[in-house]
Amino acid sequence: MWQLRLVQGPRRPRRRLTAVPLPIAVDAMGGDFAPQAVVEGCRQAVEKFGISVVLVGLPDVLAQFDLGGIPVEACTEVIEMHDEPGASVRRKKDSSLVRCAELVRDGKASAMMSAGNTGATMAAALLRMGRIKGVHRPAIATALPKLGSAPTIMLDGGANTEVQPSWLVQFAQMGSAYAASRFGLESPRVALLTIGEEAGKGNDLTKQTFKLLQDAPGIQFIGNAEGRDLLTDQVDVVVTDGFTGNVCLKALEGCLRFMVSNTIRTVNESGADQQTLQKNVVPALESMFEALSPDTYGGAMLLGTDGVCVISHGSSSPRAIVTALCLTAELVERDLVGHLRAAIGMASPAHDA
Amino acid sequence: MWQLRLVQGPRRPRRRLTAVPLPIAVDAMGGDFAPQAVVEGCRQAVEKFGISVVLVGLPDVLAQFDLGGIPVEACTEVIEMHDEPGASVRRKKDSSLVRCAELVRDGKASAMMSAGNTGATMAAALLRMGRIKGVHRPAIATALPKLGSAPTIMLDGGANTEVQPSWLVQFAQMGSAYAASRFGLESPRVALLTIGEEAGKGNDLTKQTFKLLQDAPGIQFIGNAEGRDLLTDQVDVVVTDGFTGNVCLKALEGCLRFMVSNTIRTVNESGADQQTLQKNVVPALESMFEALSPDTYGGAMLLGTDGVCVISHGSSSPRAIVTALCLTAELVERDLVGHLRAAIGMASPAHDA
Repeated sequence: MWQLRLVQGPRRPRRRLTAVPLPIAVDAMGGDFAPQAVVEGCRQAVEKFGISVVLVGLPDVLAQFDLGGIPVEACTEVIEMHDEPGASVRRKKDSSLVRCAELVRDGKASAMMSAGNTGATMAAALLRMGRIKGVHRPAIATALPKLGSAPTIMLDGGANTEVQPSWLVQFAQMGSAYAASRFGLESPRVALLTIGEEAGKGNDLTKQTFKLLQDAPGIQFIGNAEGRDLLTDQVDVVVTDGFTGNVCLKALEGCLRFMVSNTIRTVNESGADQQTLQKNVVPALESMFEALSPDTYGGAMLLGTDGVCVISHGSSSPRAIVTALCLTAELVERDLVGHLRAAIGMASPAHDA
Repeated sequence: MWQLRLVQGPRRPRRRLTAVPLPIAVDAMGGDFAPQAVVEGCRQAVEKFGISVVLVGLPDVLAQFDLGGIPVEACTEVIEMHDEPGASVRRKKDSSLVRCAELVRDGKASAMMSAGNTGATMAAALLRMGRIKGVHRPAIATALPKLGSAPTIMLDGGANTEVQPSWLVQFAQMGSAYAASRFGLESPRVALLTIGEEAGKGNDLTKQTFKLLQDAPGIQFIGNAEGRDLLTDQVDVVVTDGFTGNVCLKALEGCLRFMVSNTIRTVNESGADQQTLQKNVVPALESMFEALSPDTYGGAMLLGTDGVCVISHGSSSPRAIVTALCLTAELVERDLVGHLRAAIGMASPAHDA
């Protein structure tokens, strides 16, 4: 039987980043494979890309690993994957997650990155860093792959399950600023995720939002997008509520797994000789797997907090941690928060949330 | 360059259905490739599977095709793909869609099938056939493929963009009856689509619905499902609102296209010799394509109307029409409407919507 083996493929050349003045605060305790995968990923990011990192975690646990000289910020608590986000952040004041956010707030770190409890990461970032002035609610932005051009930014990926039309307009503005600063797009095409191309299609929320987006300053609104447009070159930023966005992201992830399993089964049943398959089919499968793998797309970004916060997939491998750290460093270097501040300020000059 | 060529593969043997007493009313004018693809599909269904069909359409248009002796029910109007559903059904009283529904209502057809305007198909079925007694709202049920077992039924696929928790409970009961009668499952596992496994996860709608589903009679509720569970063997029936369901279905469709394109690109770039690829990679791709292709999954079913109504994909090929007609005939033969009536009656004996 064939199984998919994800091997280290040829990596696109990534330039060595210029020295980031402050380290990135990394939640050493967050993620299904923490702290091992996190520590290993951090070491690689330091060695290969010169990224400056501080590991925040339990010192006696981290002492069991070769940290390669990465400094440790000691804490005494850990927020677990199943902990209730808001309550755990309020209760576990000396947890690795909360301390990461405090390091950013206190100017001791340039950004935070965690592969742990997503809800708690958001809560910690929001409660300790605060919001950018004028932002109603932060949203999670994820980069979806597409062929032949920069990824599509989809938001909200799960931060807000109940939203207001005006929040979605801000998501559009923040997503647009993010796509512009991350991928250098001059005027990203922004679309609203709904269930029909025409203006009147969708539910009450999208119908109301559509009207607001038509007049929203600072963005190029191109109309509605459907689920099938997510991975195409039709759009650069897709705006939706956190419930729909999260269901969609996970559906895409499940679809990837299904496709790969289904193809492997067909290949197994085809009776072709193994060498041929290894040479031809496995690379094709790997390419598919790569395309939607969290290892590759570099984690999600929390937009709207007053500091960079990158959320890596819970099942992050060392490689995913490296990718997420490269993304984090890039966003700091490009002053993403400054761009967001400008986008929100421009969009609502008299507004103070 | 390689391109995906979808060829007629080995078909699973399908038994010749016993004579259906009444013909299926087919909307000859509905679909992107109507009437040609519809007529061709009907001819094949009649010839290969002995399915009884009546084509409802404009007689002068249909006269241009070889109908192979299939009877025609003449009408004078056509509801176009872009027509507003409710208004067009009310206005175009002699349209092929409306006449299909009337044939079922009047006992002259056993069921209706259309690849046309989905919203108008639902409206025509609902307004002319009426609802099964006790049903709040009909829902669109779609069969999603999974490996090694019967497909998962997902509903609502787009009939209701705004829903009540009690409607979702009925969707669960109807979906369960559908899965049981279509796939012979004794006690289908029903799950609620949301954004976390735990009971408290989701938006206000799913949280309220979760509580109702726990006590709902006639179903085996197994808890929450996430987007990534849709194509797995974890669940038989997935319940959601029509907005989320439709976005999800289209996201899966888009993911399929993306994966296939991406794999083809990799194959093209791999420089392997064409014979090898033709022999090994193309079958694997076809298998993927098949798995989520509307040609294979046989159309969506409108659950809750007082008569069988199958909605085929707008871009239906003749093959998709054949599959949809086989499904329609099967559902009539298995008395799906009777099973739904029993499920709703059992669930709400004192209820009369």
